[in-house]
Amino acid sequence: MNAEFVNPFISGLLNVLETMAQTKLTPGKPKRKQGDVAKGDVSGLIGMVGPSVRGSMSITFEESLALTIMERMVGERPEKLDAEVGDMVGEVTNMICGAAKRDLADRGFEFGMATPIVVSGKQHTISHQVSGAKIILPFMCDEGLAHLEICFDK
Amino acid sequence: MNAEFVNPFISGLLNVLETMAQTKLTPGKPKRKQGDVAKGDVSGLIGMVGPSVRGSMSITFEESLALTIMERMVGERPEKLDAEVGDMVGEVTNMICGAAKRDLADRGFEFGMATPIVVSGKQHTISHQVSGAKIILPFMCDEGLAHLEICFDK
Repeated sequence: MNAEFVNPFISGLLNVLETMAQTKLTPGKPKRKQGDVAKGDVSGLIGMVGPSVRGSMSITFEESLALTIMERMVGERPEKLDAEVGDMVGEVTNMICGAAKRDLADRGFEFGMATPIVVSGKQHTISHQVSGAKIILPFMCDEGLAHLEICFDK
Repeated sequence: MNAEFVNPFISGLLNVLETMAQTKLTPGKPKRKQGDVAKGDVSGLIGMVGPSVRGSMSITFEESLALTIMERMVGERPEKLDAEVGDMVGEVTNMICGAAKRDLADRGFEFGMATPIVVSGKQHTISHQVSGAKIILPFMCDEGLAHLEICFDK
């Protein structure tokens, strides 16, 4: 997997959070080791199926950051990671993957998106089960950490 | 979504666990409410993309049951939910969905499977973000609980 496949997801994430929640994230150093795992409190996951590849992406937020995003989107800060925050994370996941899908389709790389799944739970870890490369990208801002993970089967 | 779509996943789960780990599960009463969530300690998730539908399935295990399945498959009980247990859950997820996919393809209902994702974390919850029906099925055995969830976008 090369930068051509990863960059549309990164720009999708940065654009969605800046447009929807006036939140600027700073990308950190990517990790590529098989043993590395993304850790956080609420995650959005989505599967991707194309004619020649299969894969998955996830976006994992620390609680503080997820609550801040929600506060900036709806004007009120939720007290905890409730169902509405989950729905927001699912929607953000859909939008990031949808932006990347359109971008990659323009370059001849087609895939279909499954429906998103949201996982909530203090400090859960995500492990994408693929034979190909796994890329975890940390993102920072004052309100907390996010991890974007993109994996394809080849 | 009717029984025709759900049953292949149920029989896939029962067959895989009985064949691979000599573990007999007893199905409980299905839940269909939007607010219901599956809760557990380790989950396998997979996305599905067909020409006319999209969806997702998850299988969530309590720690005790996941450790027992691993013990019966490899002969030794792991002390905790480690990476090997995660890989086993990913493989079981793939096998359940693969069995259902073949069964449903025979009935003219085709979909492609994304790669599985495994989530670990004490008492995490799973929320499938679909507009269509969500079905959560509890399964019991002496070693603990499992929840199978199947959702399609229509």
